[in-house]
Amino acid sequence: MLSKIKAVIEKIKEQRPLVHHITNYVTANDSANITLAVGASPVMASEPKEVEQMAAQAASLVLNIGTLSSLTVEAMLAAGRKAAAKGIPVIFDPVGAGATEYRTAVARRILAEVKPAVIRGNMSEITVLAGVTADIRGVDSVADESNAEKIAGQLSQKLGCVVAVTGKTDFIANGNQVRRLDNGHIMLTRVTGAGCMSSSLVGSCCAVTDAFTGAVAGVAMMGIAGEMAQQALQPGEGTGLFRMRLFDAVSRLNGELLGRYIRLS
Amino acid sequence: MLSKIKAVIEKIKEQRPLVHHITNYVTANDSANITLAVGASPVMASEPKEVEQMAAQAASLVLNIGTLSSLTVEAMLAAGRKAAAKGIPVIFDPVGAGATEYRTAVARRILAEVKPAVIRGNMSEITVLAGVTADIRGVDSVADESNAEKIAGQLSQKLGCVVAVTGKTDFIANGNQVRRLDNGHIMLTRVTGAGCMSSSLVGSCCAVTDAFTGAVAGVAMMGIAGEMAQQALQPGEGTGLFRMRLFDAVSRLNGELLGRYIRLS
Amino acid sequence: MLSKIKAVIEKIKEQRPLVHHITNYVTANDSANITLAVGASPVMASEPKEVEQMAAQAASLVLNIGTLSSLTVEAMLAAGRKAAAKGIPVIFDPVGAGATEYRTAVARRILAEVKPAVIRGNMSEITVLAGVTADIRGVDSVADESNAEKIAGQLSQKLGCVVAVTGKTDFIANGNQVRRLDNGHIMLTRVTGAGCMSSSLVGSCCAVTDAFTGAVAGVAMMGIAGEMAQQALQPGEGTGLFRMRLFDAVSRLNGELLGRYIRLS
Repeated sequence: MLSKIKAVIEKIKEQRPLVHHITNYVTANDSANITLAVGASPVMASEPKEVEQMAAQAASLVLNIGTLSSLTVEAMLAAGRKAAAKGIPVIFDPVGAGATEYRTAVARRILAEVKPAVIRGNMSEITVLAGVTADIRGVDSVADESNAEKIAGQLSQKLGCVVAVTGKTDFIANGNQVRRLDNGHIMLTRVTGAGCMSSSLVGSCCAVTDAFTGAVAGVAMMGIAGEMAQQALQPGEGTGLFRMRLFDAVSRLNGELLGRYIRLS
Repeated sequence: MLSKIKAVIEKIKEQRPLVHHITNYVTANDSANITLAVGASPVMASEPKEVEQMAAQAASLVLNIGTLSSLTVEAMLAAGRKAAAKGIPVIFDPVGAGATEYRTAVARRILAEVKPAVIRGNMSEITVLAGVTADIRGVDSVADESNAEKIAGQLSQKLGCVVAVTGKTDFIANGNQVRRLDNGHIMLTRVTGAGCMSSSLVGSCCAVTDAFTGAVAGVAMMGIAGEMAQQALQPGEGTGLFRMRLFDAVSRLNGELLGRYIRLS
Repeated sequence: MLSKIKAVIEKIKEQRPLVHHITNYVTANDSANITLAVGASPVMASEPKEVEQMAAQAASLVLNIGTLSSLTVEAMLAAGRKAAAKGIPVIFDPVGAGATEYRTAVARRILAEVKPAVIRGNMSEITVLAGVTADIRGVDSVADESNAEKIAGQLSQKLGCVVAVTGKTDFIANGNQVRRLDNGHIMLTRVTGAGCMSSSLVGSCCAVTDAFTGAVAGVAMMGIAGEMAQQALQPGEGTGLFRMRLFDAVSRLNGELLGRYIRLS
């Protein structure tokens, strides 16, 4: 799989795929910038009147419910159905699923009506979607991560899609195949948007390769960027510069660097 | 009060309180990142269908009308009433009150129906809420600041809540008690979101202490971060890096640094 | 024209004009910060109930359809008509015109009902508005730029307003007068918001001078900022720090620097 992952990053730069996002207003700028940093072309459009036409011309579609509203949910369902019908991979980021009944219901509805190619979430969110009781508070995971591998596999088999659970260790399941990534840095939990940006990178990768390879590649890139950003920090710097150095890192990533940093098993 | 303020920052890091924001789309990312930088856990949710349930699990609620809309106003009122009923402190940032009739009316309605624990605004906004005629243009204060202490005290006594007026000098009033802060740097007026971030820090602090201590602590942190960020600037840097160094500073703040920098009287 | 352009930047700092934006949620923060960096005062307000009153007190109005919705379109039309009626210059950024039928229809409607003073877009967008068939994908231009000068002139004469086409080379047309700018750096295409920020700078400039001078000045500032930011990059830095150094550059711009960098013909 490693050679395929290394090829992904070069393919993105060649093809500059259009990645349509319907996402939240907190991290939309981060998602756009990380998509550009890796070499893809982001477009954010969420008006129900135009999302089907926008999704239809995209190479992948990222749906993120971070600040969902009745209108954006309508847009996500319309765009998601259109993309799925055309074979365009849909990446679903169920931000905060489990935190409120409305959010959980919307997440379940997207799963049922859109059938995403990849779901990427933290342990709490994925546990909720798997139908197991989870600890969640706000949009941050407070769930025990020791079952992550098992839960990812269960949800992947149940829904027939790729499931990526990100946390200290990341697990990406495709049916009964599960890959593990040990990249990342604790500083990624001290900035907003690491999860959303990870989903945008998965969307950028899935635009040029299969869903399983794309999910592993995208999640790996975010973890590696966290490590590179931390290494680039100067004395006295904190979460502000760390965040900018994440974009720096992704914009400098290539197959060679990715191969050197990745801890995949 | 200083020892209580110093303790606040340690308590936030220990408790990692959930701070629910209903805020504007211009600085939502800044508010989330500053909340994370100080050690709290931000959640932004503004769909009326879920805000009561989200607010009910939060340790504090920040309402900011920077880019208010009919829908977010409905969400703010519902979440605010829920929080107030449960004794969860509500921090209200009346961005641009006075700039349009609609904005002023919404601000007054939030005061009447939510009864916030803390109001944090600039001199123009607080003057408008105090019922005095003010000079306002857009969302920036152009009012004379010489009456800030008096106006803050008047509004605090009238509404029975803590009132923080921020500007060159900050005044935080709790009934007839008024504290003065002389921290800050002029560069804070050259980036967007300094006020919003200040309110988010007040929200983070009020989640672990009483409203008066929390308001003084949060406002002090923002001013101190401005000074630290300015000191960290390298030759040739301007408002872009200054803004990132604000997050760096807050993410590195502790009781010792806070005690060393604070100019409280 | 150069001496007028150099004077613009000083006038902005003196007058600190209010620039009302109705813009997208992806780059609203960037637009606010670049407006502040150049010395103007941004206000973002998009609720139809208040936009006319806000626009009426502004020195210029920037309309940007990057993430348009039914509600923001209504707000743009109301604010735009109000501003135009009061002689307040309206800058229109037709983000993604041509990408969906809805977006194109909205852009045409704004042209017809608001009569902006300046239109600033990329080659694809301007070509669509000129009524020529264009290649567009998402919100990024994929059109051939060799006709930019001609198309800008045609659209300017047809609509009787200033038209700025930005790309590798920028052309700003005022009827049959066309100026050319050769500033900029390829890194500007690797971050989101360069176009939106350019429009915000045009808005800041048009608030203190005529539309033609303002459009040339604003577009020049963005290109120059791109060059200065690139020159300030340290080894190992990428698109994240580049973006922050853009704000640094604009916040440090003055007439002298502008005169030294500008490549105007």
